[in-house]
Amino acid sequence: MKPSLEQIIEFFKSLQDEICSKLEDLDRVGVFHEDLWERPEGGGGRTRIIEGKHIEKGGVNFSAIHGKMPQKIQEALGLDPNNFTATGVSIVLHPHNPFVPIIHMNVRYFETNQGVYWFGGGIDLTPHYINEKEAKHFHHKLKKVCDQFTPEAYNDYKAWADRYFYIKHRKESRGIGGIFFDRLSESKTVSKEEIFSFVKNLGNAFVDIYQTLFLDNYQKEFTEENIYWRNLRRSRYVEFNLVWDRGTKFGLQTNGRIESILMSMPPMAQWKYEHTPPVNSEEEKTLRYLANEMDWINYKEE
Amino acid sequence: MKPSLEQIIEFFKSLQDEICSKLEDLDRVGVFHEDLWERPEGGGGRTRIIEGKHIEKGGVNFSAIHGKMPQKIQEALGLDPNNFTATGVSIVLHPHNPFVPIIHMNVRYFETNQGVYWFGGGIDLTPHYINEKEAKHFHHKLKKVCDQFTPEAYNDYKAWADRYFYIKHRKESRGIGGIFFDRLSESKTVSKEEIFSFVKNLGNAFVDIYQTLFLDNYQKEFTEENIYWRNLRRSRYVEFNLVWDRGTKFGLQTNGRIESILMSMPPMAQWKYEHTPPVNSEEEKTLRYLANEMDWINYKEE
Repeated sequence: MKPSLEQIIEFFKSLQDEICSKLEDLDRVGVFHEDLWERPEGGGGRTRIIEGKHIEKGGVNFSAIHGKMPQKIQEALGLDPNNFTATGVSIVLHPHNPFVPIIHMNVRYFETNQGVYWFGGGIDLTPHYINEKEAKHFHHKLKKVCDQFTPEAYNDYKAWADRYFYIKHRKESRGIGGIFFDRLSESKTVSKEEIFSFVKNLGNAFVDIYQTLFLDNYQKEFTEENIYWRNLRRSRYVEFNLVWDRGTKFGLQTNGRIESILMSMPPMAQWKYEHTPPVNSEEEKTLRYLANEMDWINYKEE
Repeated sequence: MKPSLEQIIEFFKSLQDEICSKLEDLDRVGVFHEDLWERPEGGGGRTRIIEGKHIEKGGVNFSAIHGKMPQKIQEALGLDPNNFTATGVSIVLHPHNPFVPIIHMNVRYFETNQGVYWFGGGIDLTPHYINEKEAKHFHHKLKKVCDQFTPEAYNDYKAWADRYFYIKHRKESRGIGGIFFDRLSESKTVSKEEIFSFVKNLGNAFVDIYQTLFLDNYQKEFTEENIYWRNLRRSRYVEFNLVWDRGTKFGLQTNGRIESILMSMPPMAQWKYEHTPPVNSEEEKTLRYLANEMDWINYKEE
């Protein structure tokens, strides 16, 4: 049965609830602060922010907006003027411990009153320090979700993430990628219901994926240098989001709710002119991985 | 006599030398580190960075590049394909003390081998805390330089700066503005020589303007809260430069020398979800000024 708009919205809402509750359990100190907001032209959202002990700054946003399609959206999407609904959940978590990676997830749905619709989303990881074993596990978990959907999904969406999360002006990836997809609608091979199942499975996989990465690393000891490096990597995250991320740029240009859009910004970031890590350091290794397209699924540890 | 390209380049070089020398005198600890760089397609530059005691991070760049005009420049400027030369000096200084403002200056010259040319530039100020008396003095000094050029210059270029240095997504100015001008070439009323004189006068006024602001404030006592506020203001500087600044965006999209372009980034910045300063605080006063277009020349202190 085709999922209705109401079912999709309800799923996103309950996904936000569940993820927030699990993240509070992980942090054990921080609790989410919620801002309910309304969009003058129609719809609104629930922005939830945590400033915890281990999750230094995290945002888990739900929104469902609707109304007449703004000129900019029409142009960007190449659609006729219509009424539209856009709904989804967006997450960015900036951990305190430099050995816990930054994670980002987005799942979204868009439709117009003339029957055009699509799903989009993805999960990608930005470790301050790339750990090969973790990178491989992370991609395997995503592949498992994708493989339940279609045989090509993982390869296609992994490549899409590699293209998308690329900091062109630095000639490096934002992190170790993950999966990214957009404008998925029914075709000869997949139904709307199957796409929705895939999006649900991805959303539901988030907590398990992050929990492992969090629990394995949040108690690791770190030095001032590790924190400094984390802050330098955070500034690359800022550069990607403000310069290249389509969602962020679009939000800033279409008068979106600024504090919700920029919840992705880290709590603190540092810039250093021509920082060069020591030869053979963990930092240098991370940069080397970021400068190359990696096939983490088939990565062989020495 | 019309200034030659060589004279203009020589002026910019010596301006960089003089400003760097004066800034080292002010800081008394930091010295400029210089990187000479060449552009594969022609020309190059001298990037100079100071990481001092009072000037926490500052960049003073000189460049003179030439060659075939890149496609993107042709399109952006609406020019025929040509050989071009672009030269100038760019400065951004991030002070340590929150009561010393961030300052930015740029003076530049562009010409093609078909006789098209123009000057551009400006100086603008971004105080972490707006001090009305200083804002007024700052604008008076710029007005004095402008008044030697044409009677309309100050009003025109002040309004241009107000339009340019505006963080649209925050609905606030980056700072207290200053002057900004672009594409100045000879007309019925001004000769190329007179424009060059104006640009020279502006460049030469920089040290005096900054020195006053620096010496009046760099020894002021400050608290942890003042530093926090400085860091929050710095993140707005980041947002402006990465999202809206045409020069930065252009450089990032045309494969410019990244470390020279992003020397404008602060050493450290902080983002806080929905930060709201206390009622009647200095921070709130600053935000109020930034939300309004100010006529600092005619500002009356109570």
